[in-house]
Amino acid sequence: MRIALGIEYDGSGYNGWQSQPDVPNIQDTLQAALSRIAGENISIIAAGRTDTGVHALEQVVHFDTGIVRPLASWVRGTNALLPKDVAVLWAHPVADEFHARFSAQARSYQYVLINRPSRSAVHHGKVGWFHLPLDVEAMRMAAQNLLGEHDFSAFRSSQCQAKTPVKTLAQLDIVQQGDIIIFNLTANAFLHHMVRNIVGCLLYVGKGKYPPQWMHELLQGRERKLAAPTFAPDGLYLCHITYDAKWGLPQGRG
Amino acid sequence: MRIALGIEYDGSGYNGWQSQPDVPNIQDTLQAALSRIAGENISIIAAGRTDTGVHALEQVVHFDTGIVRPLASWVRGTNALLPKDVAVLWAHPVADEFHARFSAQARSYQYVLINRPSRSAVHHGKVGWFHLPLDVEAMRMAAQNLLGEHDFSAFRSSQCQAKTPVKTLAQLDIVQQGDIIIFNLTANAFLHHMVRNIVGCLLYVGKGKYPPQWMHELLQGRERKLAAPTFAPDGLYLCHITYDAKWGLPQGRG
Repeated sequence: MRIALGIEYDGSGYNGWQSQPDVPNIQDTLQAALSRIAGENISIIAAGRTDTGVHALEQVVHFDTGIVRPLASWVRGTNALLPKDVAVLWAHPVADEFHARFSAQARSYQYVLINRPSRSAVHHGKVGWFHLPLDVEAMRMAAQNLLGEHDFSAFRSSQCQAKTPVKTLAQLDIVQQGDIIIFNLTANAFLHHMVRNIVGCLLYVGKGKYPPQWMHELLQGRERKLAAPTFAPDGLYLCHITYDAKWGLPQGRG
Repeated sequence: MRIALGIEYDGSGYNGWQSQPDVPNIQDTLQAALSRIAGENISIIAAGRTDTGVHALEQVVHFDTGIVRPLASWVRGTNALLPKDVAVLWAHPVADEFHARFSAQARSYQYVLINRPSRSAVHHGKVGWFHLPLDVEAMRMAAQNLLGEHDFSAFRSSQCQAKTPVKTLAQLDIVQQGDIIIFNLTANAFLHHMVRNIVGCLLYVGKGKYPPQWMHELLQGRERKLAAPTFAPDGLYLCHITYDAKWGLPQGRG
């Protein structure tokens, strides 16, 4: 049978999601715990592969197993075996046609920035930091240029393996709460480093280096080297994967 | 001259505030960095000594030095020498009569709880966790019983060194945001473990083990052993120290 899981993790201590020998990664950590619960080797497929230092409030994965366990075992049993910085939020049986990556209709990321003169000690590794004052309204105007279907080559890392640079950005909201600024982004899919590159460029606008319409020029230019450097992974959270309701995944998750 | 500093720290990796040999603690960590900036040994006095695993959004300390440095050196210079989980927020020269501990008029703590079936991976060490549903309204009613001047012996650890168990609790608000519940407490001073003991008892009321008026009975009984166990340090933050405006400390801090 095929089982889907919701997974939360603090990516600070890991070289990203993907399985690789001799370096800590989320996939191998989770597979090891699930394999102990199953008593057989479990291989998982994730909705999105996050980079080194990037977190997830709700990553979604699936795996196949012939072993029958109560759903609570896949949650509580696995959590008892996982380190503190990785947790299973829920488990749900799904049809064999469900695929965590290919069935995903949209991904939502959140970038959490602290905007004040001194770095944050309490939130180290969990928030990005920018020390100069930011014009949030100018960043909101700049963000408007990116909404909709575009060729996002200007915000794409050279290592990106996506088949096409054309993605549809459905949401780019910027919320300010005291000295915390939260960027909420939703797209059908994201290119490699796309969120961190967009945040870096928005900060260039926010600090007054460029006007809001610079974002439009960047998009049109499709040249990565004209854009701002990739911003820190610390404040980046994969927070929600949207699937068709027909799969029956838990509602109100994430 | 006497200098006051605002200090933020993640207490997860430390055996509390207080200086002690051979174990990591915030006081020694900060004194070492300040002493390097000053080029002489610096001893600091804090408004409140936090326990192992307890955090601070704004601890206040003072120290005396004959060395004259620009204020920015005490902030940025010290931060460059401190580990990621400790930071200086601000530095301010104060009169010699100012004392971080004895001049404090009130202390404010925040307890951040995550209330959901599974533990939090992203916030491990930074939030308390309670897995059963909680009746927040019942906890608010229970909290009302503690406001004002009382003998808080029922909520006092056996190791408490305070001269009197009589303290004045000016605030005990409970705010719910999704599955996060935040307890905001302000008092002239707190007994050892008082916040964590109050939170533990409020959770007993919240899960329905006792009615709200049980808090009144506990207070009257003045018996620590009738109250709930001390709750986890993970979600506890020292967030603000109130001083008379005459000292001229930065406004809007914390």
